[in-house]
This record gives sequence, C-alpha cells and structure tokens, in this order.
Amino acid sequence: MITIIDKKRNKKELTYEEMKYAIMGYVNGEIPDYQMSAFLMAICINGLSSKETFDLTDIMLNSGDRIDLSDINGTKIDKHSTGGVGDKTTLILAPIVASLGIKVPKMSGRGLGHTGGTIDKLESIPGFKVNLTLEEFKKELKEVGAVITGQTANLVPADKKIYALRDVTGTVSSIPLIASSIMSKKLASGADKIIIDLKVGNGALVKTLDEAKKLANLMVRIGKKYNHETICILTNMNEPLGNNIGNALEVKESIELLKGNVKNDLYELVIYIASYMVSLGKKIEFEAAKKEVIETIENGNAYKKFLEMVSSQGGCLEEMQVAPKVFSIKSIKSGYINAINTEKLGMIVKEIGGGRETKDDKIDYGVGIVLSKKLGDHVEKDEEILKIYLNQKDMEIRKILSCFVIEDEKKKYQPLIYEVIM
Amino acid sequence: MITIIDKKRNKKELTYEEMKYAIMGYVNGEIPDYQMSAFLMAICINGLSSKETFDLTDIMLNSGDRIDLSDINGTKIDKHSTGGVGDKTTLILAPIVASLGIKVPKMSGRGLGHTGGTIDKLESIPGFKVNLTLEEFKKELKEVGAVITGQTANLVPADKKIYALRDVTGTVSSIPLIASSIMSKKLASGADKIIIDLKVGNGALVKTLDEAKKLANLMVRIGKKYNHETICILTNMNEPLGNNIGNALEVKESIELLKGNVKNDLYELVIYIASYMVSLGKKIEFEAAKKEVIETIENGNAYKKFLEMVSSQGGCLEEMQVAPKVFSIKSIKSGYINAINTEKLGMIVKEIGGGRETKDDKIDYGVGIVLSKKLGDHVEKDEEILKIYLNQKDMEIRKILSCFVIEDEKKKYQPLIYEVIM
Repeated sequence: MITIIDKKRNKKELTYEEMKYAIMGYVNGEIPDYQMSAFLMAICINGLSSKETFDLTDIMLNSGDRIDLSDINGTKIDKHSTGGVGDKTTLILAPIVASLGIKVPKMSGRGLGHTGGTIDKLESIPGFKVNLTLEEFKKELKEVGAVITGQTANLVPADKKIYALRDVTGTVSSIPLIASSIMSKKLASGADKIIIDLKVGNGALVKTLDEAKKLANLMVRIGKKYNHETICILTNMNEPLGNNIGNALEVKESIELLKGNVKNDLYELVIYIASYMVSLGKKIEFEAAKKEVIETIENGNAYKKFLEMVSSQGGCLEEMQVAPKVFSIKSIKSGYINAINTEKLGMIVKEIGGGRETKDDKIDYGVGIVLSKKLGDHVEKDEEILKIYLNQKDMEIRKILSCFVIEDEKKKYQPLIYEVIM
Repeated sequence: MITIIDKKRNKKELTYEEMKYAIMGYVNGEIPDYQMSAFLMAICINGLSSKETFDLTDIMLNSGDRIDLSDINGTKIDKHSTGGVGDKTTLILAPIVASLGIKVPKMSGRGLGHTGGTIDKLESIPGFKVNLTLEEFKKELKEVGAVITGQTANLVPADKKIYALRDVTGTVSSIPLIASSIMSKKLASGADKIIIDLKVGNGALVKTLDEAKKLANLMVRIGKKYNHETICILTNMNEPLGNNIGNALEVKESIELLKGNVKNDLYELVIYIASYMVSLGKKIEFEAAKKEVIETIENGNAYKKFLEMVSSQGGCLEEMQVAPKVFSIKSIKSGYINAINTEKLGMIVKEIGGGRETKDDKIDYGVGIVLSKKLGDHVEKDEEILKIYLNQKDMEIRKILSCFVIEDEKKKYQPLIYEVIM
C-alpha cells in the first residue's frame, strides 16, 4: 500500500490492479483508515487520469451487488442531484415522469452537511417506508412506476466506506472522487438512463461553473463506457431551490407544485428536468416532452401518481405536521436581495433541528424556513423576508438576516439553468 | 481539524495556533490517525513555508521534556546522521572527540527500513546498556565524556508518534517534515552545537543533492533561530560506508579503525566530521583540529576512550560474536564496480536477520556482509566481491550479486563529501 501511496504522491498513474488493491483492501479491512486517507489526499491534490477514474468507478461498482431490473418492462430512468438547499425535485419528478409511463427507480440518501436528503424528507410523512427490500423495491416499480427508497445494504459498499472517511478528512471536493462515487452508485442501481442535476454555487458542493463542467463531462464519459446514456444539467444553487426549506415544509411545497399552485424557480427546474427524462424515456423531442409534462401536472395525473406512491409505500399525508411556532422575519432595510448565503441558511435549518449534527441525532421534521422573497426581489424595510418554523430550538434573528445581502442597485440576473452536457 | 486540513490542501499558510491544534491534538489522542495522515500527505505534496516549519519544530520541541546539560562543564556537541548502510560513524566519532576533551552526549535510534541503528549496533556488545536514565546519562557524560543511549521516553513525544505514522503512510520523504523532526530532537537533547551528517544517494533517505541542500539550509536556519550552531555535511551514500554491514561486524570495523588499522572511505569521513566537531568545540581552525584528530587515533587515546565508554556502560567486547557460517561471494564477470545498489544491500542484511521486519522482531547481531571490493574497484571473474556472515537464514547468491553493476569502462568518481552548509 505504501508503494501505491508513493506512486500517487509522485503523480504517477496507477494500474487497475494497484487501484483495486487499495480500494478492495480498504473495504476488506486489510488497509487501515490512516493509509486510505493519505491516499485520498494524494488523489485530491494530484488528481486522477481518466483511465484511473474509470478504473476506480469499475472497482467500486463491482465491490458489491448490482441490481438487475431487466425483468421489469419499460425504460427505467434514474435521477440524481448532487445536493443543495431546498432541493425537493426528486419528490416531484418521480411521480410526474411515472405518470407518463416511464419507470423511475430511485435510491436516495440522507442529509449531509448543510444539504437535506430525500429520504429524510419522505420520513416526515408518518408511516412512509424508506427501507424497502429489493423485492419490495421492484414490486413498487412494477406496479406504481415510481419508487423512492434508501440505498440497500450491499450496493457499492466501497463508496459507503470511502465516503464516510472523506467526510472527516477534508477529501470530499475532488472531481474524480465525486464522479466515481456518483457514477458507481448510479450504474449499480439498475436504471437504463441517468439524469444528473449538478448544482453549482454557494449552496452546493461544487462552487464554480468551471469545476462543474469538468465533473459533468467526466460523468457523461463514464456513463457512455457502460452504455448508460447520461445527461448532466448544470443548475444554479446560489439561492435555495423553491421557497421552502425543511423536511415537512418541502413535502408541502412539492404537493402544492404537483397541484399546479406553485410557479417559482423550482417549477421551472422541475419542468426542465422532467422534459429531459420524458424525452429520453419516450425518445421524443424535448418540446413534445415538455408539453406532456405540463399537461400531466395540469390534469392532476402527476399529483395522483404522487398520492399513489405515498400510500403504496405506507405514508399517511394527513398526519404530517409542521412546527407550531411560526415567526415572521422582517427586513431591517429596503433594497434588492442581491445575494443569499445558501449554505448558511441550510446550516440554520440544520441547527434548529431540521438536520443531524451527528449520525445518531433525531430530526425534527416540522421545522424550517419559508422564503417570502427570493434572489432579485425587492424588499421594503419591515417587510417580511421569510417565516421560520420552530419547535424545541430557537435561532437569532440577526444570524438569519445576515444570510441576505440587500442593496440599492439590483444585480445582474443569473440563469437557473447554465448548461446541459450529454 | 477538517478546516486545517482544507487550508493546507488549498496551499494556504497555517497560523501557529492551527499548527499547534493539529500536532498537540494528535499527541493527546484527540485527533485520529486518519485525519493526521491526510494532513501529513497535504504537507508532503504542498510543502510548508519557512514560518510553518519553524512553528512545527517549536511545537514538537515543546511537546515533551527538554534536557538541561548546563550543569556539566565544557562544550557539548551532538552528532546526527540521517542514516545509511554501514554507517557506524557515531561509534567512532564519540570516543575520538571525547578523547580530545569535548563532551559528546548522544541519543541514538534503532534501525529503520534498510538502514541500521546505532543502538542496535551497540547492543551487539553483550551487556552494553542502552537504556540509561537521565541521571546515568549525565553521569557518563561528566565522567567519561562520551555517552550513547536510546532516546528517553518523553523527549519530543510528538515526533515519536508522527514518525511512526509517516513510516506507514508514504509521508516520510518531505523536506520540512524531516527538518523539523531532526531539529526538534536535537534541540531537545541539550547539546550546545549540532553536527549533521546528511547522507545523499541511492542508500539514503534523501536521493538528490538538490533536495539535500534544501534540507541542510532549513536545518541550519532552525538551529540559528535557537542559537545552536548547526553544521550540515552532505556526504555520499551511493555505496555502503566502510566495508562492514551488520551490527557486530560494524563494531569490529569501528574498533579496527580506532586502532589505526582501517584507512578506507569510512576513515576519511570520520576524520572530516571529527575535525569539524573539534574545531567547533575548541574554537580552532579545521586543519589544527584535523591534526589533533589524527594524533588521538595514532597514539591510541581514541581507542582507550572507546574501551572506557563501553566498559562504563556495561559492555563486554570479549563476548561479542559474529555469525559462524561465512561464505565468499565471487564475481561472475570481470570489470569495474560502477554502481552498488546500497538500499538493496541494506535490505539483504535485514533479511538475513540483521534488522527487524516488525517492531518486535529479534535481531541476529552476528550476521552481515564484509565487502572486499568498493565502488570503482576492479574485480576479476571468480574474484571475491564480499563475504556474507550467516546464522539461521540463507540468501540467494544471485540476489546479492545483482546489487553490483560491473562494467568494462570505469565510471567517473563521485566525491565522498559534497559540501558543508553552515
């Protein structure tokens, strides 16, 4: 292992066998944490070649089970988001796309750092089962067409173990490590095609467009190598997505959107991604797909599919609750909202109980924030910027307001969708 | 800690407080191995500024006890070697210099990797006590003038713990880490002046002259900061030093040299370093010092001092033994010895029992190699290149011969001493 670490330290390319020795040795417990973390740091600083990244993905992909969905008819499309604040698109996209006859088998994760996780959001619906067996997963997919569950135990165990170590050793933000981590999981989970919503900005893992493009190109190339068509959509995460942040509050916004009552940036993004998914799944033009997507919301089919999915997975929406204490936070000056510290806002929701500090913390599902104003909006002095929903813990108003940059001149508008790489 | 790792990963300079948090947190067991190894790898690749290196040295120096030798009269000079194959200079220098009235307080280490350690060499003398208490150490220094012992328990504990981790995580060869490791130990052990024999070449930790110069300059600057005059002598380690490799065999060569019977490269180096030590200690010119050094060997005083040191530390030279099975290894071709794979030769001596594979292995003190030919020598086909001394384990002749490059044309001579940096 020391020879392998030395090689990477000295910027030499590793062979498949060397990479496998390191990764599988670590998974099997033969290589200790401290050697793996030194190896990961050398990768973070010195990078990996394309060949090494492909090798790493392949080794991780084969470190555990690969789900076989070939006995289920129809195109199966997986959608992944690299994570952001207020990102509840999965909850909305799965029923929209499934209502149009395309299968959406989705394995999701829990919240990490300042970002929420789809599984936590679904658990705010009392009774919703997120730990389906593989058989249950396939049954839901066959019968309902949309299914969202936590990752099964033996799917890419190498990534699970390495990710946990990266999280505590300052080795998270490495493009080849992120690419192989995402793609090995997507390839192992059995869908035919993959859509990735790659978030860019101050609320995302990837902060610059330049990095995002590199990551997207790498993931698309990995997908091609395995004959899994992959599309990366680079989207703006310089403000929370939509208006609601916090588990139950995000489910509520999702429902309102599916009912046709929300037309904000979240709606725009959902329509865009859903159209790509439908276009891929049905092999039709983007514009034709878009028409179908808008229609399935307007005619109520998407919402019906959502209700079907929730009840089929045991959830009871009537029992879902938001926190009882609601405070209106008002601006202390007037002007345009030119910037929102999205990561900090995500951390605030975590601190009031909406996320975990340690693995074993319990989440307070009802707490969160509902934005009354978004980026570029004008706000008057003493006008409400947001509502905060609290339960056990309090939060300083000053800290919340410090997330917003309010200026007299309105700043240039940044697009919601930067680029599509395929 | 993750913030500190991130900072170093992104090539930013750490403050004293941040460096202290990382180092002392690790020493106190609050920071786990896997975070420290990621941090060390980031240092290895991205380097440390001079300020950071000074800070690191200071923090390590103050992580444990500092020995106070101010109550012992006379100049005290410490000599350190960065380690090589066949390097027994400490055993010879200490009595030479002490016989001329300069105190040599020396704390040495054990063998590491392919290099031997002075403490192991001394233990090949039955009865020799290498675990002196601080009181015993000072008593020997006062009465005999030369003392060699293992490092006391609480001298630079930070270096002890970090060195062990570096050894298994591919983070040994970093100039600022080597400099702070050596200098913190030297500064803590109480001598007034420091002489460092910095080995360069295929048998040394530092492989190129360029790296060696950087390391030497850094160490000299650290010494100055603490008002400890430091001299670095850059010397050739592209062949074993002297003719004997292996613990008891090296003690034997040392005795023969002190008796005036050995005049090889080892002799040349010993005279050179001893002259610097005497020149420093007596504040006299190098040439005058050299004269005294040669004289103290010729008139037997140096050897007498060696016998005094050995018996005072409990050693019984009469009982020292070399291995019983001696084989003459002969060349299979004729020509000039143009290169010797010194590291490999060191590993061979380790493998036949002269060193440890794991910390708990017992050393076979009597085994080793005695070279009949050195770099640049001519050898005939079937002429002896070396003798190997074996006991329990055997060694393939082919493997031994593969350490020697024998060619028709004689290669250019490389000097034994490259440069002195002070």
